[in-house]
Amino acid sequence: MEKSILLLYCIDQKGIVAKVTTFLYKNNANILSSNQHSDHKSNMFYMRIEFDISNFLIKKQDIKTEFYKNVAKALDINFKIYFEDEKINSAIFVSGYEHCLIDILLKNNTNDLNMNIKAIISNHSTIENVVKKYSKGLDFFYISIDKNNKDLAEKQELEILQKYNVNLIILARYMQILSDNFISLYENKIINIHHSFLPAFMGANPYKKAFDRGVKLIGATSHYATAILDDGPIIEQDVIRISHKDSELDLINRGKDLEKRVLSRAIKLHLEHKILVANKKTIIFD
Amino acid sequence: MEKSILLLYCIDQKGIVAKVTTFLYKNNANILSSNQHSDHKSNMFYMRIEFDISNFLIKKQDIKTEFYKNVAKALDINFKIYFEDEKINSAIFVSGYEHCLIDILLKNNTNDLNMNIKAIISNHSTIENVVKKYSKGLDFFYISIDKNNKDLAEKQELEILQKYNVNLIILARYMQILSDNFISLYENKIINIHHSFLPAFMGANPYKKAFDRGVKLIGATSHYATAILDDGPIIEQDVIRISHKDSELDLINRGKDLEKRVLSRAIKLHLEHKILVANKKTIIFD
Amino acid sequence: MEKSILLLYCIDQKGIVAKVTTFLYKNNANILSSNQHSDHKSNMFYMRIEFDISNFLIKKQDIKTEFYKNVAKALDINFKIYFEDEKINSAIFVSGYEHCLIDILLKNNTNDLNMNIKAIISNHSTIENVVKKYSKGLDFFYISIDKNNKDLAEKQELEILQKYNVNLIILARYMQILSDNFISLYENKIINIHHSFLPAFMGANPYKKAFDRGVKLIGATSHYATAILDDGPIIEQDVIRISHKDSELDLINRGKDLEKRVLSRAIKLHLEHKILVANKKTIIFD
Amino acid sequence: MEKSILLLYCIDQKGIVAKVTTFLYKNNANILSSNQHSDHKSNMFYMRIEFDISNFLIKKQDIKTEFYKNVAKALDINFKIYFEDEKINSAIFVSGYEHCLIDILLKNNTNDLNMNIKAIISNHSTIENVVKKYSKGLDFFYISIDKNNKDLAEKQELEILQKYNVNLIILARYMQILSDNFISLYENKIINIHHSFLPAFMGANPYKKAFDRGVKLIGATSHYATAILDDGPIIEQDVIRISHKDSELDLINRGKDLEKRVLSRAIKLHLEHKILVANKKTIIFD
Repeated sequence: MEKSILLLYCIDQKGIVAKVTTFLYKNNANILSSNQHSDHKSNMFYMRIEFDISNFLIKKQDIKTEFYKNVAKALDINFKIYFEDEKINSAIFVSGYEHCLIDILLKNNTNDLNMNIKAIISNHSTIENVVKKYSKGLDFFYISIDKNNKDLAEKQELEILQKYNVNLIILARYMQILSDNFISLYENKIINIHHSFLPAFMGANPYKKAFDRGVKLIGATSHYATAILDDGPIIEQDVIRISHKDSELDLINRGKDLEKRVLSRAIKLHLEHKILVANKKTIIFD
Repeated sequence: MEKSILLLYCIDQKGIVAKVTTFLYKNNANILSSNQHSDHKSNMFYMRIEFDISNFLIKKQDIKTEFYKNVAKALDINFKIYFEDEKINSAIFVSGYEHCLIDILLKNNTNDLNMNIKAIISNHSTIENVVKKYSKGLDFFYISIDKNNKDLAEKQELEILQKYNVNLIILARYMQILSDNFISLYENKIINIHHSFLPAFMGANPYKKAFDRGVKLIGATSHYATAILDDGPIIEQDVIRISHKDSELDLINRGKDLEKRVLSRAIKLHLEHKILVANKKTIIFD
Repeated sequence: MEKSILLLYCIDQKGIVAKVTTFLYKNNANILSSNQHSDHKSNMFYMRIEFDISNFLIKKQDIKTEFYKNVAKALDINFKIYFEDEKINSAIFVSGYEHCLIDILLKNNTNDLNMNIKAIISNHSTIENVVKKYSKGLDFFYISIDKNNKDLAEKQELEILQKYNVNLIILARYMQILSDNFISLYENKIINIHHSFLPAFMGANPYKKAFDRGVKLIGATSHYATAILDDGPIIEQDVIRISHKDSELDLINRGKDLEKRVLSRAIKLHLEHKILVANKKTIIFD
Repeated sequence: MEKSILLLYCIDQKGIVAKVTTFLYKNNANILSSNQHSDHKSNMFYMRIEFDISNFLIKKQDIKTEFYKNVAKALDINFKIYFEDEKINSAIFVSGYEHCLIDILLKNNTNDLNMNIKAIISNHSTIENVVKKYSKGLDFFYISIDKNNKDLAEKQELEILQKYNVNLIILARYMQILSDNFISLYENKIINIHHSFLPAFMGANPYKKAFDRGVKLIGATSHYATAILDDGPIIEQDVIRISHKDSELDLINRGKDLEKRVLSRAIKLHLEHKILVANKKTIIFD
């Protein structure tokens, strides 16, 4: 089997599914799964199809062109085609907290997260040892950041990302704010984990804020980064129950497993091309 | 809009989706949503399509025949077509515990469960007042049951079900065992709620068994009734956390809300034709 | 058995538990359960003790005085003593949405919520029929509210509350804002249900805000009302998972069961005297 | 602060709390937290007290004797006293699946699980590299097991456990059955993780059984091992939602995080002396 994934959206209209699936069928693909969503408010249609191209009559490199010519053009469809055997190149940004990084490295080691980690970038030099321990051989870059060298630091980061042809940036508890320019270069390609149930407790110190407010559940939110802090399209959220017995430090510690879980689920959804972004929200084809 | 639902299954093969959706498209239906599932072990394909037939070129009463002739026959597809405006006729069986019955009656009053309740049947005469209070006007039947009159009682029940053309039987904490014959007449049309996380604690007194075993979560399971007790295809399950502080009576009381929730979700899935049964398991197109 | 509940707090110091429990023991009470919490930041101590007074050497009406004289005075303890057989008088305020009201009435009918509902007050006249249907005999008051008669309306409400000696006000989806004066008269005695996971989506239309933000979980929060809207001490919160398939109306409908569950749990905790409020947060002795 | 923990149980009777806490108070301890449970069916009383002994008038080595003489003897109390600074010596048994082992090693590295891991014992030689990678310096023992050498293998294991004075055995997905004799030597000191929601799917291949039964939630259960397989007192359980889309392999993979979470919570409760076993069930003072 040779799996391919088609993600598309267009104005809702009759015949989309018939035309798309007939194209695949006539060219001898086998549809493995299919999901669709119609948004009635905006009159938009969204779809994800997994299909087996091992006997496909069109060559891999021509699928895009043929699909455009035969189907997408007439219906004004926006689409992307992915091949399962083409792994995504990723970079992980991390600051002092290392639990999310370690979790990703372990899951990458066992192929629970199936990507090419090309670079691990941190403003904390201590992370180098973590990388060495859990994934010897991965490239680590220490880029110190202070208020005077932010531009330079981002320039260095961008060079690394471009050199390695990185297509996915994971902010695994990265506590530095990225510039609008930086973010605009990687639209819907930067996954952040925020340690609260957004939109509650945006910005710094969410566990302190949660503790002070006396909430009975704490949350974690994984989202695509946008120019506005903690405001990007939400991919995944979850919560755990706490009580008055938990100190602020307890929240920080108990939240670690939650953050790991939410971030790794979001990364997995992205790697499997199960996410479409529309109107600042995500459609998750799971 | 005039919504219709097509549920189908067949041996997995290329072209199913293309042929089904092309049939709908050519006849001017608009596909509202579509879900599919391929079971690789058994090589079977399952699908649910919601489509708008308000401009359909085929008359409502002919859709079945036309779909068979043009699509289903060649692909050897098993299918059913439902129309949203045709409400299902249901009967509710209940014994002494009335919480699930009340919940269904309330949800039916507000159309959260959209069906025609044709009869409420109980082996407890006290239920009559419950019905009068929460849904005045519904037909109630008291059928007393003891070990000597079981056959007669079932005969009476079947007469009622046939008279009212009942297509869905809800066992809302009904504590009598139905005969194999009775069950075989309503295959995948009898929804039971069992007050445990099946297959743990099958049979009588599951809360006592759960208490004695010292579990930390209690569950409820809604399933289609089959000839083997508590063994039918599971539609929905859920659990709540308990502790050593909970007595057996606490479990009974705390389980009530859980049972209501699980049963009403299962009924809703059935009413919306979102369930396919295969190999003693359910496929839930939600 | 004749259950009594002691709720207390004071500056943390050695010997509190010993002195309190020795007082109970010497006077022939049997301690049924006991919970305590020390807040290290504020150096405060909180405690709840349930004890059986059926053989207590002190008369019921003297317990308060004797406990003060013998224990509380020296340790500067703030305390309250409740007797299980003294039901709390409550009033329910409700606007157009009736699901929480119905749930409370049903749970009160079956003693799952053990209180004396003295009055149901609504600014919607249609609620009268709901009350008649589910709890015939309860006193209903229709008090219409517009921007010109708010003061007068509150005056009427307060008269009712005082006439019936109401000690607990339940805002069961009551959409009017109460004045600071009103709230100050019932400190920690007004339980509100807000249909979001506070502090996210405070104020009006939380389901619309949640829909627009694209959250993956929606929540409900029950809290004591304070002068600042949706800012009072949180008693209970819970969430359910939603997806991009849910419309704003779906959120409203799916949230109903959640709101009922969260509100009724909060009421139950209050009725069982399991809540202490400190520093704008609750300590839940459960 | 120097924390000590007292765990006790006895026949329920008046004055226990008063006498225990007065003993602590008179000797200048500060009670940090206290939990109790009365089981009305068996008329037994259970208690856990955390107290600060930094200014205690009794020497550490005499507390046991003094408490017995002054309190426990007269009330016929069974008790144990623990000191927070005395770490528990543990051994981890593991077979081919390494995810639980790795999770424990990582949590031990960061003191999220606060114990002395004295030995890691496996019937799979490949585990040695895992130990070296994640916790260099820990002692690893490869003890191969086949049907002919079971007795000898257990003898070797017991020698290791005795040599290292091990007081807690963690079966981190250990797939060999221990003999009754072995288990009897470590009553309530062997924590197992079973990959199902017990008592559903006891014994081998629970994920296969869960898949075949078509459950909608899968679970994990951590319990003390007893002579009867998967029948010991349950410490912790949890579940995650699955669907018809999940294959048996998906269940195995998705269950990994669940097993880790449930096992590490159970270990933590044990290490913090929060568990009392009574009537084959656990009382969790959390």
